[in-house]
Amino acid sequence: MKSGELYVSVVGDGKCDQKIYQTAYEVGQLIAERGATLVCGGLGGVMEAACKGAKSKNGLTVGILPSEDRKWANSYVDVAIPTALGEARNVLIARCADAVIAVGGEFGTLSEIALALKMGKPVVGIGTWELFKGQRKDKSIIYAAHPQEALNAVLQMLGA
Amino acid sequence: MKSGELYVSVVGDGKCDQKIYQTAYEVGQLIAERGATLVCGGLGGVMEAACKGAKSKNGLTVGILPSEDRKWANSYVDVAIPTALGEARNVLIARCADAVIAVGGEFGTLSEIALALKMGKPVVGIGTWELFKGQRKDKSIIYAAHPQEALNAVLQMLGA
Amino acid sequence: MKSGELYVSVVGDGKCDQKIYQTAYEVGQLIAERGATLVCGGLGGVMEAACKGAKSKNGLTVGILPSEDRKWANSYVDVAIPTALGEARNVLIARCADAVIAVGGEFGTLSEIALALKMGKPVVGIGTWELFKGQRKDKSIIYAAHPQEALNAVLQMLGA
Amino acid sequence: MKSGELYVSVVGDGKCDQKIYQTAYEVGQLIAERGATLVCGGLGGVMEAACKGAKSKNGLTVGILPSEDRKWANSYVDVAIPTALGEARNVLIARCADAVIAVGGEFGTLSEIALALKMGKPVVGIGTWELFKGQRKDKSIIYAAHPQEALNAVLQMLGA
Repeated sequence: MKSGELYVSVVGDGKCDQKIYQTAYEVGQLIAERGATLVCGGLGGVMEAACKGAKSKNGLTVGILPSEDRKWANSYVDVAIPTALGEARNVLIARCADAVIAVGGEFGTLSEIALALKMGKPVVGIGTWELFKGQRKDKSIIYAAHPQEALNAVLQMLGA
Repeated sequence: MKSGELYVSVVGDGKCDQKIYQTAYEVGQLIAERGATLVCGGLGGVMEAACKGAKSKNGLTVGILPSEDRKWANSYVDVAIPTALGEARNVLIARCADAVIAVGGEFGTLSEIALALKMGKPVVGIGTWELFKGQRKDKSIIYAAHPQEALNAVLQMLGA
Repeated sequence: MKSGELYVSVVGDGKCDQKIYQTAYEVGQLIAERGATLVCGGLGGVMEAACKGAKSKNGLTVGILPSEDRKWANSYVDVAIPTALGEARNVLIARCADAVIAVGGEFGTLSEIALALKMGKPVVGIGTWELFKGQRKDKSIIYAAHPQEALNAVLQMLGA
Repeated sequence: MKSGELYVSVVGDGKCDQKIYQTAYEVGQLIAERGATLVCGGLGGVMEAACKGAKSKNGLTVGILPSEDRKWANSYVDVAIPTALGEARNVLIARCADAVIAVGGEFGTLSEIALALKMGKPVVGIGTWELFKGQRKDKSIIYAAHPQEALNAVLQMLGA
């Protein structure tokens, strides 16, 4: 593997229902099949699902943890980066990837979406936050109906 | 002044129209009149307006800057904290205050709103982002029509 | 007060003996008498002593805390910045000042000295770490025998 | 590979002579032979040498970069984490490893040594900083004469 290749962050909540879990799992599979490195927050729920999916396709997974101890990483994280930075690690998850795919998600996920958009990175969402100002819907998040559409959108926006 | 008193962060864009500027100015005035410390990102636009308002009422203003040089602080910042952290300084703006008031704002502001909500802090908005999941509007941001209503909401939520 | 004025960080251990405490207290006094803003880690020991000294001369004190709660600030901190970043807040203490004065200190202090030197900022020490590579003593830290000498060295190096 | 395994950070300057380069290369080889993940700052000099050594033994290498762009990673970094945090990324290099091996080094390296010691992690040095307070030499850094001795010391201190 070469640094310089594609990195995609998958963001979402640490707890999720089975449908979201399955979606994140498939997102992880597709990222790995594409040969990209999967970055996430390293914990459970969507993060675990995406890592599990990536590992099922022999992908590489990176977990950037809020804790100071690596033991909180889910079992499918290859490279665990315990930061002890709490929510501030969300900035790194947005920063170190070329694009972000959000699956569901709560406020932590919203912060990662917003930070990635602020940094000018593509953000693709499946069943995630929608943003309005006044009556105007913001068009910055690209919405996908399913994992394949999400990955296609990422690759198209990156010209990859 | 005692640490332990009230700190309120005002977040918003570094460029804004005159109406938003006036609103942020009045928010700053009210924060200072209440005896609270005003925290912001230290730059122009909403940040400058809020600091200017606070100084007109002899308040104390703190600017947590993305740059490594203090010279980028607006002229109404009393305590300038150049962080050299870029967008990661947004986390500190959310973290170090008891509550956040958002006036207008773009993606940087959205990240500060999301981080503050994730941290469980009151967030009051004037003309800022509205958040939806599916058809459901999220109720976590308290919307205010004008500065006095915003400050009242903050004080009520803090029991201050 | 204007941003753009002088900021001096005082670094040292959170626990110290009476002699070190008195030294740090006098350093704080001198910083305040010079009209500079005193920055520190906001906790006890050397940090408390420096803040107490600065307040005795009506100075302004800033405490950049490792914790997420402002309540851990010592009683002489005017502006408390709880970061929830743990040791990573040491970087901010080095970054946001024009110069650093180290009084005694352990490994946290050493990290702040090293970071400030890496950033090219003047570092003056009283009874603090001495650095060697092989048999060669590094000359980057300027050693002072007492608080007045320390402040003089800082001002001279800054051309202030 | 499993998270939960051993991570060792190698710290040192971005520019170094051939002797230091060779030492860092061998340190990287030994870390990889042990099956540990090598973490470093991702740039040139000691960082590149250690990564190159690790890759010669089919190891896994992580580079935590100060820049916001992955392109600054040396060619032997497998997982590049561009942080855009500048010197603040030094904290992560100390934090995310189980132990630190310093080879030579300047002030950035000293900051990583100090931060790791503050965090209670083993630090082993080859030709690196020596620390004194007064006439007393600090014994916290374990000095090794060559790479094998360094790795042995790390493993012994970790009980690994």
